Amino acid sequence: MSDQPAPPETASADDHQSGNDIVTAALLVIGDEILSGRTKDKNIGFVADYCTSIGIDLKEVRIVPDEEERIIEAVNALRTRYTYLFTTGGIGPTHDDITADSVARAFGLPIDVDPRIVEIMKTRYPDRDITPARLRMARVPEGADLVDNKVSGLPGFRVQNVFVLAGVPSVMQGMFDALAPGLRTGRRMLSETIDAGRPEGVIAEPLGSIQKAHPDTVIGSYPYFEDGRFATRVVVRARDKAVLAAVTSEVEAMLATLPRP
Amino acid sequence: MSDQPAPPETASADDHQSGNDIVTAALLVIGDEILSGRTKDKNIGFVADYCTSIGIDLKEVRIVPDEEERIIEAVNALRTRYTYLFTTGGIGPTHDDITADSVARAFGLPIDVDPRIVEIMKTRYPDRDITPARLRMARVPEGADLVDNKVSGLPGFRVQNVFVLAGVPSVMQGMFDALAPGLRTGRRMLSETIDAGRPEGVIAEPLGSIQKAHPDTVIGSYPYFEDGRFATRVVVRARDKAVLAAVTSEVEAMLATLPRP
Repeated sequence: MSDQPAPPETASADDHQSGNDIVTAALLVIGDEILSGRTKDKNIGFVADYCTSIGIDLKEVRIVPDEEERIIEAVNALRTRYTYLFTTGGIGPTHDDITADSVARAFGLPIDVDPRIVEIMKTRYPDRDITPARLRMARVPEGADLVDNKVSGLPGFRVQNVFVLAGVPSVMQGMFDALAPGLRTGRRMLSETIDAGRPEGVIAEPLGSIQKAHPDTVIGSYPYFEDGRFATRVVVRARDKAVLAAVTSEVEAMLATLPRP
Repeated sequence: MSDQPAPPETASADDHQSGNDIVTAALLVIGDEILSGRTKDKNIGFVADYCTSIGIDLKEVRIVPDEEERIIEAVNALRTRYTYLFTTGGIGPTHDDITADSVARAFGLPIDVDPRIVEIMKTRYPDRDITPARLRMARVPEGADLVDNKVSGLPGFRVQNVFVLAGVPSVMQGMFDALAPGLRTGRRMLSETIDAGRPEGVIAEPLGSIQKAHPDTVIGSYPYFEDGRFATRVVVRARDKAVLAAVTSEVEAMLATLPRP
Protein backbone atom coordinates (compact mmCIF):
# COMPACT_ATOMS: atom_id res chain seq x y z
CA MET A 1 0.00 0.00 0.00
CA SER A 2 1.46 3.34 -1.03
CA ASP A 3 0.75 6.11 1.43
CA GLN A 4 0.22 9.02 -0.96
CA PRO A 5 -1.42 8.11 -4.25
CA ALA A 6 -2.66 11.05 -6.29
CA PRO A 7 -6.37 11.69 -6.65
CA PRO A 8 -7.85 10.97 -10.09
CA GLU A 9 -8.26 14.66 -10.72
CA THR A 10 -7.95 17.84 -8.75
CA ALA A 11 -11.32 19.13 -7.66
CA SER A 12 -11.14 22.54 -6.06
CA ALA A 13 -13.78 24.35 -4.09
CA ASP A 14 -14.55 26.73 -6.92
CA ASP A 15 -15.18 24.06 -9.52
CA HIS A 16 -18.24 25.13 -11.40
CA GLN A 17 -20.88 22.72 -12.51
CA SER A 18 -20.07 21.19 -15.84
CA GLY A 19 -23.44 19.54 -16.33
CA ASN A 20 -22.24 17.07 -18.91
CA ASP A 21 -19.64 14.62 -17.76
CA ILE A 22 -19.89 11.95 -15.12
CA VAL A 23 -18.93 12.78 -11.55
CA THR A 24 -18.46 9.90 -9.12
CA ALA A 25 -18.20 9.57 -5.37
CA ALA A 26 -17.58 7.05 -2.62
CA LEU A 27 -18.68 7.09 1.01
CA LEU A 28 -16.56 5.75 3.86
CA VAL A 29 -18.45 5.15 7.11
CA ILE A 30 -16.05 4.87 10.04
CA GLY A 31 -17.09 3.28 13.32
CA ASP A 32 -17.09 0.09 15.36
CA GLU A 33 -20.64 0.85 16.49
CA ILE A 34 -22.07 0.38 12.98
CA LEU A 35 -20.24 -2.93 12.50
CA SER A 36 -21.35 -4.26 15.89
CA GLY A 37 -24.96 -3.40 15.07
CA ARG A 38 -25.30 -1.16 18.13
CA THR A 39 -25.93 1.86 15.91
CA LYS A 40 -27.89 1.52 12.70
CA ASP A 41 -26.38 3.66 9.95
CA LYS A 42 -28.55 6.50 8.71
CA ASN A 43 -25.93 8.25 6.59
CA ILE A 44 -25.62 5.88 3.62
CA GLY A 45 -29.20 6.39 2.44
CA PHE A 46 -28.94 10.15 2.92
CA VAL A 47 -25.70 10.48 0.94
CA ALA A 48 -27.02 8.14 -1.77
CA ASP A 49 -30.18 10.22 -2.22
CA TYR A 50 -28.28 13.51 -2.06
CA CYS A 51 -25.70 12.46 -4.64
CA THR A 52 -28.34 11.18 -7.03
CA SER A 53 -30.35 14.39 -6.69
CA ILE A 54 -27.39 16.62 -7.60
CA GLY A 55 -26.01 14.49 -10.42
CA ILE A 56 -23.18 12.65 -8.68
CA ASP A 57 -22.97 8.86 -9.06
CA LEU A 58 -22.29 7.19 -5.70
CA LYS A 59 -20.25 4.17 -6.84
CA GLU A 60 -19.05 2.54 -3.64
CA VAL A 61 -19.59 2.53 0.11
CA ARG A 62 -17.32 0.99 2.72
CA ILE A 63 -17.79 0.64 6.46
CA VAL A 64 -14.57 0.12 8.44
CA PRO A 65 -13.81 -0.04 12.18
CA ASP A 66 -11.99 2.61 14.24
CA GLU A 67 -8.59 1.21 13.22
CA GLU A 68 -6.02 3.51 11.65
CA GLU A 69 -4.62 1.10 9.06
CA ARG A 70 -8.09 0.16 7.84
CA ILE A 71 -9.11 3.81 7.52
CA ILE A 72 -5.93 4.80 5.68
CA GLU A 73 -6.24 1.89 3.29
CA ALA A 74 -9.87 2.68 2.48
CA VAL A 75 -9.25 6.43 2.11
CA ASN A 76 -6.43 5.83 -0.35
CA ALA A 77 -8.32 3.17 -2.31
CA LEU A 78 -11.42 5.35 -2.67
CA ARG A 79 -9.98 8.84 -3.13
CA THR A 80 -7.85 7.70 -6.05
CA ARG A 81 -10.70 5.97 -7.82
CA TYR A 82 -13.60 8.42 -7.57
CA THR A 83 -14.06 12.16 -8.06
CA TYR A 84 -14.99 12.67 -4.42
CA LEU A 85 -14.78 10.75 -1.18
CA PHE A 86 -16.98 11.57 1.79
CA THR A 87 -16.19 10.12 5.20
CA THR A 88 -18.53 10.08 8.20
CA GLY A 89 -17.67 9.45 11.83
CA GLY A 90 -14.67 9.51 14.12
CA ILE A 91 -14.06 13.27 14.36
CA GLY A 92 -15.06 13.79 18.00
CA PRO A 93 -12.76 14.42 20.97
CA THR A 94 -12.42 10.90 22.40
CA HIS A 95 -9.66 8.32 22.08
CA ASP A 96 -11.57 6.37 19.43
CA ASP A 97 -11.86 9.42 17.14
CA ILE A 98 -8.92 8.87 14.82
CA THR A 99 -10.31 9.92 11.45
CA ALA A 100 -8.47 13.26 11.13
CA ASP A 101 -5.11 11.68 11.98
CA SER A 102 -5.75 8.75 9.64
CA VAL A 103 -6.69 11.05 6.75
CA ALA A 104 -3.56 13.14 7.36
CA ARG A 105 -1.47 9.97 7.23
CA ALA A 106 -3.26 8.80 4.08
CA PHE A 107 -2.18 12.03 2.38
CA GLY A 108 1.25 12.13 4.06
CA LEU A 109 0.39 15.54 5.53
CA PRO A 110 1.31 16.95 8.95
CA ILE A 111 -1.62 17.56 11.31
CA ASP A 112 -1.98 20.14 14.04
CA VAL A 113 -4.51 22.24 15.95
CA ASP A 114 -6.05 24.73 13.51
CA PRO A 115 -6.36 28.29 14.87
CA ARG A 116 -9.55 28.84 12.83
CA ILE A 117 -11.26 26.04 14.73
CA VAL A 118 -9.93 27.27 18.08
CA GLU A 119 -11.57 30.63 17.29
CA ILE A 120 -14.89 28.86 16.65
CA MET A 121 -14.48 26.99 19.97
CA LYS A 122 -13.92 30.26 21.81
CA THR A 123 -17.29 31.55 20.60
CA ARG A 124 -18.94 28.43 22.03
CA TYR A 125 -17.11 27.52 25.24
CA PRO A 126 -15.57 29.48 28.09
CA ASP A 127 -11.75 29.25 27.98
CA ARG A 128 -11.62 26.76 30.88
CA ASP A 129 -13.72 24.32 28.81
CA ILE A 130 -11.29 24.34 25.89
CA THR A 131 -9.63 21.22 27.21
CA PRO A 132 -6.89 19.20 25.50
CA ALA A 133 -9.63 16.70 24.57
CA ARG A 134 -11.72 19.38 22.88
CA LEU A 135 -8.58 20.66 21.13
CA ARG A 136 -8.28 17.21 19.53
CA MET A 137 -11.36 18.21 17.55
CA ALA A 138 -9.46 21.23 16.22
CA ARG A 139 -6.77 19.07 14.61
CA VAL A 140 -6.90 19.02 10.80
CA PRO A 141 -4.31 18.14 8.17
CA GLU A 142 -2.18 21.03 6.92
CA GLY A 143 -3.86 23.04 4.19
CA ALA A 144 -7.34 21.61 4.78
CA ASP A 145 -10.41 23.72 4.04
CA LEU A 146 -13.07 23.75 6.74
CA VAL A 147 -16.62 22.49 6.16
CA ASP A 148 -19.13 24.66 7.96
CA ASN A 149 -21.24 23.10 10.71
CA LYS A 150 -24.34 25.15 11.45
CA VAL A 151 -25.82 22.45 13.69
CA SER A 152 -23.22 22.08 16.42
CA GLY A 153 -20.44 24.51 15.53
CA LEU A 154 -17.26 22.49 15.11
CA PRO A 155 -16.46 22.05 11.42
CA GLY A 156 -15.59 19.13 9.22
CA PHE A 157 -12.78 19.58 6.72
CA ARG A 158 -11.71 18.95 3.17
CA VAL A 159 -8.33 17.81 1.85
CA GLN A 160 -8.19 17.75 -1.95
CA ASN A 161 -11.14 15.56 -3.01
CA VAL A 162 -11.84 14.10 0.45
CA PHE A 163 -14.53 15.54 2.73
CA VAL A 164 -14.35 14.52 6.38
CA LEU A 165 -17.73 14.83 8.08
CA ALA A 166 -19.34 14.08 11.43
CA GLY A 167 -21.08 10.78 12.12
CA VAL A 168 -24.13 12.14 13.94
CA PRO A 169 -26.75 12.25 11.15
CA SER A 170 -28.16 15.73 11.84
CA VAL A 171 -24.65 17.21 11.95
CA MET A 172 -23.48 15.29 8.88
CA GLN A 173 -26.54 16.44 6.94
CA GLY A 174 -25.88 20.07 7.84
CA MET A 175 -22.27 19.70 6.69
CA PHE A 176 -23.42 18.14 3.44
CA ASP A 177 -25.72 21.09 2.77
CA ALA A 178 -22.75 23.39 3.42
CA LEU A 179 -20.34 21.61 1.08
CA ALA A 180 -22.69 20.65 -1.76
CA PRO A 181 -22.64 24.03 -3.59
CA GLY A 182 -18.85 23.64 -4.01
CA LEU A 183 -19.10 20.23 -5.70
CA ARG A 184 -18.69 19.67 -9.38
CA THR A 185 -21.78 17.82 -10.54
CA GLY A 186 -22.52 15.83 -13.66
CA ARG A 187 -25.57 15.37 -15.75
CA ARG A 188 -28.31 14.08 -13.49
CA MET A 189 -29.35 10.48 -13.82
CA LEU A 190 -33.13 10.43 -14.30
CA SER A 191 -35.29 7.44 -13.48
CA GLU A 192 -38.74 5.98 -13.93
CA THR A 193 -40.14 3.18 -11.79
CA ILE A 194 -42.64 0.69 -13.20
CA ASP A 195 -44.43 -1.82 -10.98
CA ALA A 196 -44.31 -4.93 -13.14
CA GLY A 197 -46.57 -6.95 -10.86
CA ARG A 198 -45.17 -10.32 -11.96
CA PRO A 199 -42.20 -12.15 -10.46
CA GLU A 200 -38.79 -11.54 -12.02
CA GLY A 201 -38.68 -14.95 -13.72
CA VAL A 202 -41.58 -13.97 -15.98
CA ILE A 203 -40.16 -10.67 -17.18
CA ALA A 204 -36.45 -11.47 -17.15
CA GLU A 205 -36.03 -12.47 -20.80
CA PRO A 206 -37.94 -9.65 -22.52
CA LEU A 207 -36.46 -7.15 -20.08
CA GLY A 208 -32.95 -8.39 -20.84
CA SER A 209 -33.61 -7.87 -24.55
CA ILE A 210 -34.70 -4.29 -23.96
CA GLN A 211 -31.58 -3.63 -21.87
CA LYS A 212 -29.41 -5.09 -24.63
CA ALA A 213 -31.02 -2.82 -27.22
CA HIS A 214 -30.42 0.28 -25.07
CA PRO A 215 -26.89 0.27 -23.67
CA ASP A 216 -27.24 3.99 -22.81
CA THR A 217 -29.83 3.19 -20.12
CA VAL A 218 -29.49 1.14 -16.97
CA ILE A 219 -32.51 -1.08 -16.36
CA GLY A 220 -32.74 -2.44 -12.84
CA SER A 221 -35.10 -5.15 -11.71
CA TYR A 222 -35.96 -5.29 -8.01
CA PRO A 223 -37.95 -8.18 -6.63
CA TYR A 224 -40.07 -7.69 -3.56
CA PHE A 225 -42.02 -10.11 -1.47
CA GLU A 226 -45.44 -9.07 -0.27
CA ASP A 227 -48.55 -10.92 0.85
CA GLY A 228 -46.88 -14.25 0.18
CA ARG A 229 -45.99 -13.57 -3.44
CA PHE A 230 -43.09 -12.14 -5.41
CA ALA A 231 -43.43 -9.15 -7.65
CA THR A 232 -40.93 -6.83 -9.31
CA ARG A 233 -40.26 -3.15 -9.67
CA VAL A 234 -38.44 -2.19 -12.83
CA VAL A 235 -36.37 1.00 -12.72
CA VAL A 236 -35.19 2.59 -15.95
CA ARG A 237 -32.35 5.09 -15.55
CA ALA A 238 -30.92 7.39 -18.20
CA ARG A 239 -29.38 10.84 -18.33
CA ASP A 240 -31.44 11.85 -21.37
CA LYS A 241 -35.12 12.62 -20.83
CA ALA A 242 -36.24 11.47 -24.27
CA VAL A 243 -34.29 8.22 -24.04
CA LEU A 244 -35.77 7.60 -20.60
CA ALA A 245 -39.32 8.13 -21.89
CA ALA A 246 -38.78 5.90 -24.93
CA VAL A 247 -37.32 2.98 -22.99
CA THR A 248 -39.95 3.29 -20.25
CA SER A 249 -42.67 3.03 -22.92
CA GLU A 250 -40.95 0.01 -24.37
CA VAL A 251 -40.96 -1.74 -20.97
CA GLU A 252 -44.64 -0.90 -20.46
CA ALA A 253 -45.52 -2.19 -23.93
CA MET A 254 -43.60 -5.41 -23.19
CA LEU A 255 -45.50 -5.88 -19.90
CA ALA A 256 -48.83 -5.38 -21.71
CA THR A 257 -48.08 -8.40 -23.92
CA LEU A 258 -47.68 -10.73 -20.90
CA PRO A 259 -50.54 -12.62 -19.26
CA ARG A 260 -52.02 -10.65 -16.35
CA PRO A 261 -50.23 -11.30 -13.03
CA MET B 1 -5.65 -8.00 -9.16
CA SER B 2 -5.06 -11.73 -8.89
CA ASP B 3 -8.09 -13.78 -9.74
CA GLN B 4 -7.73 -16.63 -7.26
CA PRO B 5 -6.19 -15.72 -3.92
CA ALA B 6 -6.52 -18.33 -1.21
CA PRO B 7 -8.86 -17.74 1.72
CA PRO B 8 -7.18 -17.06 5.09
CA GLU B 9 -8.23 -20.46 6.33
CA THR B 10 -10.47 -23.22 5.16
CA ALA B 11 -13.83 -23.12 6.88
CA SER B 12 -15.97 -26.12 6.11
CA ALA B 13 -19.62 -26.66 6.83
CA ASP B 14 -18.91 -29.05 9.67
CA ASP B 15 -16.60 -26.72 11.57
CA HIS B 16 -17.60 -26.99 15.16
CA GLN B 17 -17.72 -24.01 17.45
CA SER B 18 -14.37 -23.35 19.04
CA GLY B 19 -15.63 -20.73 21.48
CA ASN B 20 -12.23 -19.21 22.13
CA ASP B 21 -10.56 -17.64 19.16
CA ILE B 22 -11.67 -14.70 17.10
CA VAL B 23 -13.82 -15.29 14.06
CA THR B 24 -14.25 -12.42 11.59
CA ALA B 25 -16.58 -11.66 8.72
CA ALA B 26 -17.25 -9.13 6.00
CA LEU B 27 -20.48 -8.28 4.20
CA LEU B 28 -20.67 -7.33 0.53
CA VAL B 29 -23.92 -5.67 -0.53
CA ILE B 30 -24.35 -5.80 -4.31
CA GLY B 31 -26.75 -3.50 -6.11
CA ASP B 32 -27.09 -0.25 -8.02
CA GLU B 33 -30.38 0.41 -6.23
CA ILE B 34 -28.69 0.84 -2.84
CA LEU B 35 -26.07 3.22 -4.24
CA SER B 36 -28.69 5.32 -6.05
CA GLY B 37 -30.71 5.63 -2.84
CA ARG B 38 -33.80 4.09 -4.43
CA THR B 39 -33.68 1.17 -2.00
CA LYS B 40 -32.57 1.68 1.59
CA ASP B 41 -30.43 -1.20 2.78
CA LYS B 42 -31.90 -3.31 5.56
CA ASN B 43 -29.35 -6.12 5.48
CA ILE B 44 -26.30 -4.43 7.02
CA GLY B 45 -27.92 -3.88 10.42
CA PHE B 46 -29.35 -7.40 10.44
CA VAL B 47 -26.04 -9.08 9.62
CA ALA B 48 -24.20 -6.85 12.12
CA ASP B 49 -26.60 -7.78 14.94
CA TYR B 50 -26.61 -11.45 13.97
CA CYS B 51 -22.81 -11.72 13.84
CA THR B 52 -22.41 -9.97 17.18
CA SER B 53 -24.99 -12.22 18.79
CA ILE B 54 -23.24 -15.44 17.69
CA GLY B 55 -19.67 -14.33 18.42
CA ILE B 56 -18.47 -13.32 14.95
CA ASP B 57 -16.81 -9.92 14.54
CA LEU B 58 -18.14 -8.13 11.46
CA LYS B 59 -15.05 -6.17 10.41
CA GLU B 60 -15.95 -4.58 7.10
CA VAL B 61 -18.90 -3.86 4.82
CA ARG B 62 -18.76 -2.81 1.19
CA ILE B 63 -21.53 -1.79 -1.18
CA VAL B 64 -20.70 -2.11 -4.88
CA PRO B 65 -22.75 -1.68 -8.06
CA ASP B 66 -23.92 -4.46 -10.41
CA GLU B 67 -20.57 -4.46 -12.24
CA GLU B 68 -18.62 -7.69 -12.61
CA GLU B 69 -15.13 -6.27 -12.09
CA ARG B 70 -16.17 -4.40 -8.95
CA ILE B 71 -17.83 -7.51 -7.50
CA ILE B 72 -14.85 -9.76 -8.27
CA GLU B 73 -12.41 -7.29 -6.78
CA ALA B 74 -14.43 -6.92 -3.57
CA VAL B 75 -15.04 -10.68 -3.21
CA ASN B 76 -11.33 -11.42 -3.51
CA ALA B 77 -10.28 -8.60 -1.21
CA LEU B 78 -12.73 -9.62 1.51
CA ARG B 79 -12.66 -13.43 1.34
CA THR B 80 -8.90 -13.50 1.75
CA ARG B 81 -8.90 -11.17 4.72
CA TYR B 82 -11.75 -12.45 6.91
CA THR B 83 -12.95 -15.85 8.11
CA TYR B 84 -16.25 -15.49 6.26
CA LEU B 85 -17.71 -13.30 3.56
CA PHE B 86 -21.45 -12.91 3.11
CA THR B 87 -22.84 -11.33 -0.05
CA THR B 88 -26.39 -10.07 -0.54
CA GLY B 89 -28.15 -9.27 -3.78
CA GLY B 90 -27.86 -9.99 -7.47
CA ILE B 91 -28.92 -13.65 -7.53
CA GLY B 92 -32.24 -13.28 -9.31
CA PRO B 93 -33.08 -14.21 -12.92
CA THR B 94 -32.67 -10.83 -14.66
CA HIS B 95 -29.81 -9.41 -16.73
CA ASP B 96 -28.54 -7.34 -13.80
CA ASP B 97 -28.16 -10.42 -11.56
CA ILE B 98 -24.49 -11.22 -12.04
CA THR B 99 -23.38 -12.23 -8.56
CA ALA B 100 -23.11 -15.98 -9.14
CA ASP B 101 -21.02 -15.54 -12.30
CA SER B 102 -18.83 -12.94 -10.62
CA VAL B 103 -18.19 -15.16 -7.60
CA ALA B 104 -17.33 -18.09 -9.91
CA ARG B 105 -14.83 -15.85 -11.73
CA ALA B 106 -13.39 -14.61 -8.43
CA PHE B 107 -12.62 -18.23 -7.52
CA GLY B 108 -11.64 -19.24 -11.06
CA LEU B 109 -14.36 -21.90 -11.02
CA PRO B 110 -16.62 -23.03 -13.86
CA ILE B 111 -20.32 -22.28 -13.41
CA ASP B 112 -23.31 -24.17 -14.70
CA VAL B 113 -26.95 -25.00 -14.00
CA ASP B 114 -27.08 -27.15 -10.86
CA PRO B 115 -29.41 -30.17 -11.08
CA ARG B 116 -30.23 -29.90 -7.33
CA ILE B 117 -31.68 -26.45 -7.90
CA VAL B 118 -33.58 -27.55 -11.02
CA GLU B 119 -35.18 -30.24 -8.82
CA ILE B 120 -36.27 -27.57 -6.32
CA MET B 121 -37.68 -25.50 -9.21
CA LYS B 122 -39.70 -28.47 -10.43
CA THR B 123 -41.44 -28.71 -7.06
CA ARG B 124 -42.43 -25.04 -7.35
CA TYR B 125 -43.19 -24.35 -11.00
CA PRO B 126 -44.84 -26.27 -13.82
CA ASP B 127 -42.25 -27.36 -16.43
CA ARG B 128 -43.34 -24.68 -18.91
CA ASP B 129 -42.43 -21.98 -16.34
CA ILE B 130 -38.87 -23.25 -15.98
CA THR B 131 -37.70 -20.70 -18.51
CA PRO B 132 -34.09 -19.97 -19.50
CA ALA B 133 -34.34 -16.86 -17.29
CA ARG B 134 -35.40 -18.92 -14.26
CA LEU B 135 -32.63 -21.40 -15.04
CA ARG B 136 -30.16 -18.52 -14.63
CA MET B 137 -31.07 -18.71 -10.94
CA ALA B 138 -29.95 -22.34 -10.88
CA ARG B 139 -26.39 -21.48 -11.93
CA VAL B 140 -23.82 -21.94 -9.17
CA PRO B 141 -20.04 -22.36 -9.23
CA GLU B 142 -18.78 -25.95 -9.43
CA GLY B 143 -18.65 -27.65 -6.02
CA ALA B 144 -20.80 -25.07 -4.24
CA ASP B 145 -22.93 -26.10 -1.28
CA LEU B 146 -26.51 -24.85 -1.34
CA VAL B 147 -27.94 -22.57 1.34
CA ASP B 148 -31.51 -23.48 2.14
CA ASN B 149 -34.24 -20.93 1.45
CA LYS B 150 -37.41 -21.70 3.37
CA VAL B 151 -39.00 -18.36 2.45
CA SER B 152 -39.11 -18.49 -1.33
CA GLY B 153 -37.55 -21.80 -2.30
CA LEU B 154 -34.55 -21.05 -4.50
CA PRO B 155 -31.36 -21.46 -2.52
CA GLY B 156 -28.27 -19.33 -2.01
CA PHE B 157 -24.90 -21.05 -2.13
CA ARG B 158 -21.54 -21.35 -0.45
CA VAL B 159 -18.09 -21.62 -2.03
CA GLN B 160 -15.34 -22.15 0.54
CA ASN B 161 -15.75 -19.26 3.01
CA VAL B 162 -18.10 -17.18 0.86
CA PHE B 163 -21.89 -17.30 1.32
CA VAL B 164 -23.97 -15.87 -1.52
CA LEU B 165 -27.40 -14.79 -0.32
CA ALA B 166 -30.50 -13.07 -1.67
CA GLY B 167 -30.96 -9.31 -1.40
CA VAL B 168 -34.63 -9.29 -0.39
CA PRO B 169 -34.39 -8.91 3.41
CA SER B 170 -36.93 -11.58 4.40
CA VAL B 171 -35.28 -14.12 2.11
CA MET B 172 -31.76 -13.16 3.18
CA GLN B 173 -32.74 -13.49 6.83
CA GLY B 174 -34.17 -16.95 6.26
CA MET B 175 -30.97 -17.99 4.51
CA PHE B 176 -28.90 -16.62 7.38
CA ASP B 177 -30.87 -18.68 9.86
CA ALA B 178 -30.22 -21.73 7.68
CA LEU B 179 -26.47 -21.23 7.39
CA ALA B 180 -25.67 -19.95 10.89
CA PRO B 181 -25.50 -23.37 12.62
CA GLY B 182 -22.67 -24.33 10.24
CA LEU B 183 -20.50 -21.33 11.11
CA ARG B 184 -17.50 -21.48 13.34
CA THR B 185 -18.03 -18.87 16.04
CA GLY B 186 -15.68 -17.22 18.45
CA ARG B 187 -16.00 -16.08 22.00
CA ARG B 188 -18.88 -13.64 22.12
CA MET B 189 -18.08 -9.98 22.55
CA LEU B 190 -20.13 -8.72 25.51
CA SER B 191 -21.06 -5.09 26.00
CA GLU B 192 -22.44 -2.64 28.52
CA THR B 193 -23.88 0.75 27.57
CA ILE B 194 -23.65 3.70 29.94
CA ASP B 195 -25.48 6.95 29.26
CA ALA B 196 -22.86 9.51 30.25
CA GLY B 197 -25.20 12.47 29.95
CA ARG B 198 -22.42 14.99 29.27
CA PRO B 199 -20.95 15.89 25.88
CA GLU B 200 -17.91 13.97 24.69
CA GLY B 201 -15.52 16.87 25.33
CA VAL B 202 -16.12 16.61 29.08
CA ILE B 203 -15.50 12.89 29.41
CA ALA B 204 -12.88 12.37 26.69
CA GLU B 205 -9.75 12.66 28.85
CA PRO B 206 -10.71 10.43 31.80
CA LEU B 207 -12.31 7.95 29.39
CA GLY B 208 -9.12 7.83 27.33
CA SER B 209 -7.14 7.02 30.48
CA ILE B 210 -9.48 4.14 31.33
CA GLN B 211 -9.15 2.78 27.78
CA LYS B 212 -5.36 3.01 28.02
CA ALA B 213 -5.36 1.07 31.29
CA HIS B 214 -7.52 -1.72 29.79
CA PRO B 215 -6.23 -2.70 26.35
CA ASP B 216 -8.30 -5.91 26.51
CA THR B 217 -11.54 -3.92 26.29
CA VAL B 218 -12.83 -1.67 23.54
CA ILE B 219 -14.41 1.50 24.89
CA GLY B 220 -16.54 3.35 22.37
CA SER B 221 -17.92 6.82 22.83
CA TYR B 222 -20.99 7.76 20.80
CA PRO B 223 -22.24 11.32 20.81
CA TYR B 224 -25.88 12.03 20.16
CA PHE B 225 -27.76 15.24 19.69
CA GLU B 226 -31.12 15.57 21.37
CA ASP B 227 -33.28 18.50 22.46
CA GLY B 228 -30.62 20.95 21.31
CA ARG B 229 -27.76 19.51 23.33
CA PHE B 230 -25.03 16.92 22.93
CA ALA B 231 -24.69 13.93 25.19
CA THR B 232 -22.73 10.69 24.95
CA ARG B 233 -23.29 6.99 25.27
CA VAL B 234 -20.27 5.02 26.35
CA VAL B 235 -20.10 1.38 25.30
CA VAL B 236 -17.66 -0.96 26.98
CA ARG B 237 -16.96 -4.19 25.08
CA ALA B 238 -14.99 -7.20 26.29
CA ARG B 239 -15.09 -10.95 25.83
CA ASP B 240 -14.61 -11.62 29.54
CA LYS B 241 -17.59 -11.00 31.82
CA ALA B 242 -15.53 -10.04 34.88
CA VAL B 243 -13.35 -7.65 32.89
CA LEU B 244 -16.47 -6.08 31.40
CA ALA B 245 -18.03 -5.56 34.85
CA ALA B 246 -14.82 -4.09 36.30
CA VAL B 247 -14.26 -1.60 33.48
CA THR B 248 -17.93 -0.60 33.43
CA SER B 249 -17.72 0.16 37.17
CA GLU B 250 -14.60 2.20 36.56
CA VAL B 251 -16.38 4.30 33.91
CA GLU B 252 -19.35 4.83 36.23
CA ALA B 253 -17.08 5.85 39.11
CA MET B 254 -15.29 8.30 36.80
CA LEU B 255 -18.62 9.83 35.72
CA ALA B 256 -19.64 10.24 39.37
CA THR B 257 -16.62 12.48 39.98
CA LEU B 258 -17.65 14.94 37.25
CA PRO B 259 -19.98 17.90 37.79
CA ARG B 260 -23.61 16.98 37.06
CA PRO B 261 -24.55 17.45 33.38
